[in-house]
Amino acid sequence: MKKNLLVAQSGGPTAAINATLAGIIERAFENPEIEHVLGADYGIQGVLQEHFIDLSVKIPELALAEIGGVDQNGEVDPEALDGGLMRILDRLSTTPAAALGSCRYKLKDPGVDPSEFERIIAIFKKYNIGYFIYIGGNDSMDTVWKLSQYIKSKGIEDITVVGAPKTIDNDLYGIDHCPGFGSAAKYIATTISELERELLVYDMPYVIIVEMMGRNAGWLTAAAALAENQNARVPYLIYLEEVPFDLNEFISDLRAEMSVHKNIIVAISEGIRDRSDKMICDYGAENRPKDAFGHVIASGAGKVLENAVKSNIGCKVRSIELNLLQRCAGHLLSRTDIRESRALGKNAAELAFAGKNGCMSTLRRISALGDAEYKVVYDSVDIREVANKEKKVPEKWISSEGNGVTQECINYLKPLIQGELSCEFEGGIPKYVVFR
Amino acid sequence: MKKNLLVAQSGGPTAAINATLAGIIERAFENPEIEHVLGADYGIQGVLQEHFIDLSVKIPELALAEIGGVDQNGEVDPEALDGGLMRILDRLSTTPAAALGSCRYKLKDPGVDPSEFERIIAIFKKYNIGYFIYIGGNDSMDTVWKLSQYIKSKGIEDITVVGAPKTIDNDLYGIDHCPGFGSAAKYIATTISELERELLVYDMPYVIIVEMMGRNAGWLTAAAALAENQNARVPYLIYLEEVPFDLNEFISDLRAEMSVHKNIIVAISEGIRDRSDKMICDYGAENRPKDAFGHVIASGAGKVLENAVKSNIGCKVRSIELNLLQRCAGHLLSRTDIRESRALGKNAAELAFAGKNGCMSTLRRISALGDAEYKVVYDSVDIREVANKEKKVPEKWISSEGNGVTQECINYLKPLIQGELSCEFEGGIPKYVVFR
Repeated sequence: MKKNLLVAQSGGPTAAINATLAGIIERAFENPEIEHVLGADYGIQGVLQEHFIDLSVKIPELALAEIGGVDQNGEVDPEALDGGLMRILDRLSTTPAAALGSCRYKLKDPGVDPSEFERIIAIFKKYNIGYFIYIGGNDSMDTVWKLSQYIKSKGIEDITVVGAPKTIDNDLYGIDHCPGFGSAAKYIATTISELERELLVYDMPYVIIVEMMGRNAGWLTAAAALAENQNARVPYLIYLEEVPFDLNEFISDLRAEMSVHKNIIVAISEGIRDRSDKMICDYGAENRPKDAFGHVIASGAGKVLENAVKSNIGCKVRSIELNLLQRCAGHLLSRTDIRESRALGKNAAELAFAGKNGCMSTLRRISALGDAEYKVVYDSVDIREVANKEKKVPEKWISSEGNGVTQECINYLKPLIQGELSCEFEGGIPKYVVFR
Repeated sequence: MKKNLLVAQSGGPTAAINATLAGIIERAFENPEIEHVLGADYGIQGVLQEHFIDLSVKIPELALAEIGGVDQNGEVDPEALDGGLMRILDRLSTTPAAALGSCRYKLKDPGVDPSEFERIIAIFKKYNIGYFIYIGGNDSMDTVWKLSQYIKSKGIEDITVVGAPKTIDNDLYGIDHCPGFGSAAKYIATTISELERELLVYDMPYVIIVEMMGRNAGWLTAAAALAENQNARVPYLIYLEEVPFDLNEFISDLRAEMSVHKNIIVAISEGIRDRSDKMICDYGAENRPKDAFGHVIASGAGKVLENAVKSNIGCKVRSIELNLLQRCAGHLLSRTDIRESRALGKNAAELAFAGKNGCMSTLRRISALGDAEYKVVYDSVDIREVANKEKKVPEKWISSEGNGVTQECINYLKPLIQGELSCEFEGGIPKYVVFR
């Protein structure tokens, strides 16, 4: 009997998560045993609420519109439709943020409360779902883990649950690097290269501080080193979340560099903390009472450092928070990242069709760091190795001064940002695939 | 006798100011009467300090390196070198920020103190400079005006001073729109389209507030309407600097939209003020004492609005300041803007060679707003019409509710962002022309 495949997206969006979705759809459409590909609206919450988008209807609809509809006889050239279909999947691959919608929802432990699991299985049976692929980060892999174990414990053999990775944070175990990270890293390195051009415009001491996402891992901040490695005309000071941050040492690092150079780039993780584990972004917060609206004006670590530079060095300084821009820049993607993200989606579908319940689609780098040729293979990994863990930048990849990364780290990062890819534009504005 | 041409850049950098520089160099290299093209290091300050870069040496040097140096016989194919030269000028055209460096320096009134003018003329004579082109905004055009008048008043006939426009603010008189603005507007519209994808990811009320540059004119903020016009699935509320801002009206605008839609994009100018002319970014500042470093944490208008939404609506809200990113994004340029910026540079050189002292290179739109075909012609304008004035978004282009722009405004803006152009990339990272 033919089965349906259900796919959902979860966690924070990325610029590549839809490429993985496109890969899953592409592979599922090729499988004659799959009747419908359903997308859950807003992650596992959409599953629980039975909110589904029938992608086996929606994608061909979009493809038909793409090729200009039916001809005068009300017919469609199947080859043209296939071409339109591939154009829609390519466009979906460069559409940023989760096209199906996302959620941050952790299922309860089935040992404590199995009701949600019972409900999910009932819904799967109701909609004839044989395969469920969940695209997400470490929290979402917890959902895959719990669900796959529940299915196993109940002796259910006709439902396979597989995870597909994504996160700009690059903090997943069980994979060489995370889909979505390469595009964010490319955006960061490019933007910092541009900011360095800005930095050098005036003939005066000037410090630009750039704050990257990453509460618990400094991978995105490390990407600043890619700009430094290849383009830099000025010193870079790079402070990762992995190293305890000391404001006095920062000022003395800066003074040392500024005794030789007028202009400095500083790259920091939003989550930098001091030795007592206090967030730098919370410095001075006790001196800030609630404002007219009853809220303390929240400010990032970059603002705190900006003020420290003003007070201690007294030069021109500006802090810039890359904020959401670093994870949704569909106009500046890493071609490598989008290719791999789509392949990871195809691989996830293949793992599901092979009945590999409880695994995550993964890639392994088979070339050595620093090799001229970069090569990966696609594989699977037991979901237990991935769920609920965070991979940090290893200590050996951080410079002994704690304000930069090593060449080995650069060798790891560099292949991930190779090749440029942009979303489509129409009339000067991005053109996306939008499901609702 | 052959003469030298001197060019300098001034004011805030843009993503297109080097395209104008490239146009000037290109045209000057074609003129056999020009011996050297000199670039002043850091604007008029570099002139006063006699800090020059000899671009007639530097550009061919870069071109020679580009084509791989001399051949085995120590010779160079002149055609290959010409090709290399054009590649360098093309790369310069997509290099963001002022490659020659910039300054914010206003010459003293020559009626009060002519010493700087005497010095500049002496330097021009010393370096055999027959033509001086200053690329800048309204303040820089003041320099062009004063200098050209001083030259005239002294009966000097062998020096011609011409202005070339630039500013992302689009606030110059005497020109249909400013070079640099189109690329910034394209960056803004693209980025807001991307943020709208982010906005729709979660199934909950969510407001994203985007803050654009523009202390005194709302042109950049109006560019948000380009995303709204073509892509928007959610309501946009757009508040320009030209309209007095009322926090209560903002909350009621938002409530009205949110009674129908969960998600809203808000676009604001950094310089929005209330009816008493108080900057919105200064709201609540009196309640914020100095922090640990002796500084009030400066926050933009976006943060103030974010807090107001938190307090009054209580939904998820995030404010994003586009900051320097909107003016240095060499990886996302408007092809129209870069083409026009370069043509304005060529035109400035031609005006200089024609001895048109005291004018600015300009363009006029000869197609009507809303025409399918967009057309401009290049011309000159008396510098008095430009210097020290600021052109605001006209009232008739702002919606009667004061929270959007009219179709006519969109018709004005839309042609300026057409066509995509990116800086070159090498090894995944931008490749620029750098003079020092």
